Amino acid sequence: MVMIMPVNNVEIICVGNELLIGKTLNTNAHWLAKRITTLGLKVRRITVVGDDLEEIASAVKETIKRKPCFVVVTGGLGPTFDDKTLEGVALGLNRSLQENKEALEMIKAKYEEYVAEGRMEKYEMTPHRVKMARLPEGAEPLPNPVGTAPGVILKHECVKMVMLPGVPEEMKAIFEESVAKMLQEIAGGLTFYEASLEVRNLPESELAPILDEAMHDNPYVYIKSHPKASEKTHHIELHFSTTSEDSHVAKQRIGRALLQISEMIKRKGGKIRPKKT
Amino acid sequence: MVMIMPVNNVEIICVGNELLIGKTLNTNAHWLAKRITTLGLKVRRITVVGDDLEEIASAVKETIKRKPCFVVVTGGLGPTFDDKTLEGVALGLNRSLQENKEALEMIKAKYEEYVAEGRMEKYEMTPHRVKMARLPEGAEPLPNPVGTAPGVILKHECVKMVMLPGVPEEMKAIFEESVAKMLQEIAGGLTFYEASLEVRNLPESELAPILDEAMHDNPYVYIKSHPKASEKTHHIELHFSTTSEDSHVAKQRIGRALLQISEMIKRKGGKIRPKKT
Repeated sequence: MVMIMPVNNVEIICVGNELLIGKTLNTNAHWLAKRITTLGLKVRRITVVGDDLEEIASAVKETIKRKPCFVVVTGGLGPTFDDKTLEGVALGLNRSLQENKEALEMIKAKYEEYVAEGRMEKYEMTPHRVKMARLPEGAEPLPNPVGTAPGVILKHECVKMVMLPGVPEEMKAIFEESVAKMLQEIAGGLTFYEASLEVRNLPESELAPILDEAMHDNPYVYIKSHPKASEKTHHIELHFSTTSEDSHVAKQRIGRALLQISEMIKRKGGKIRPKKT
Repeated sequence: MVMIMPVNNVEIICVGNELLIGKTLNTNAHWLAKRITTLGLKVRRITVVGDDLEEIASAVKETIKRKPCFVVVTGGLGPTFDDKTLEGVALGLNRSLQENKEALEMIKAKYEEYVAEGRMEKYEMTPHRVKMARLPEGAEPLPNPVGTAPGVILKHECVKMVMLPGVPEEMKAIFEESVAKMLQEIAGGLTFYEASLEVRNLPESELAPILDEAMHDNPYVYIKSHPKASEKTHHIELHFSTTSEDSHVAKQRIGRALLQISEMIKRKGGKIRPKKT
């Protein structure tokens, strides 16, 4: 079976004890995975580690070894003791941490803005605030349009890495302003297309051979069944996806697979209806 | 700073392309992380990979190398071509896949039940159905109270691994029926306690030195600040947690830390109120 997917792998690393104790649902990974996929790239792995220097460093080392073209790290860029991402990344890449002048200026400008807006009376560049400007050697800051801590970008061998804050609105803002266009450039015009079908009245185990046949006949379309509950309820979502440089080709591919599978399902007594993705 | 956490590490591996394309929010990892933490164990890492044999195998190999005491794998146990978890685990552990008699009986019993309930007319043990009974050598099935595919348990060197389906209700049912008691036994009476405080009127960067002091004075309590939005809004949740064999001791520890930090925050002009966790 031929499985066509863009070769440009991206990995996501999420940092935060709150994710490992089940306090916070990882909506950041979900949002990033969807955005990166839509931009035409393939997310190969998501790794979640705690606020621990060694854990962050080892996740970074292992990720780099797999040679993705791009790595997005979220969480742990703020001013408190448990914001250890930049130090962990530096350790993982065997670089020193250095106070970055541009980052420091960005942070100062933010506090000046807060004072001007009356949100703070005055401000001082305390060690905790300066910490947000201590970047791995060779890294550069990315402006944060909605918060204080800048994003960070660096290149390691052939891998580009960006570090984004964990607060979702800040993560998204920096991604949209600075990261999306870099990814788009790497994808080089590839885009991701998807469609869904709701199947009822057929257990997943009877759908299985139909899927095999449709996948065989539609090598450029990935078709995955998602049981919406346990098998006995016979309620399944079929998800179709493909990646292409040509939107017309992509739609045609998915349309053909949809048609073929719909007919096979009906012949087996299954009921179908299109589903909004 | 002393950070007391149970030494019994658990890792979670989630398998599914739908998680990597951002189609599905990983509520399974969230639920598992919370349950495992509540049972007194520490989740060290969560790894998400796609429905790919090599990816599953390499995630398993890397996880085993970190020597957790327990690994929970979810997703990919069903009858379709993309349910590759058991094959991937076998590959990662260098074991063969073998048809397991007990698992086959469990699956047959399920289909007989579906026929008896009138959900299916008849059933045949097709290759796709038998596939759910092909387990890594030495593994044993765990009954699935609400679905068809059994869970699977095996031991590799000192690591216990369970494989659970990706359908949330099936995953939870097998976990509660068969896995929770194993984890409880490993935890040996340890339990996790937490509390939260809502802080307003103080930017996170001014809270940072207060946290340092409170963490220093309360070495058994982990205190983490969660900005609820960007720093300028001054809205932060402070989360306190500890793990102990004695609930009285745990509550006392957290109570002491809460009191100290509340006083320090008020002195700086911050406003606090308790928050339900």
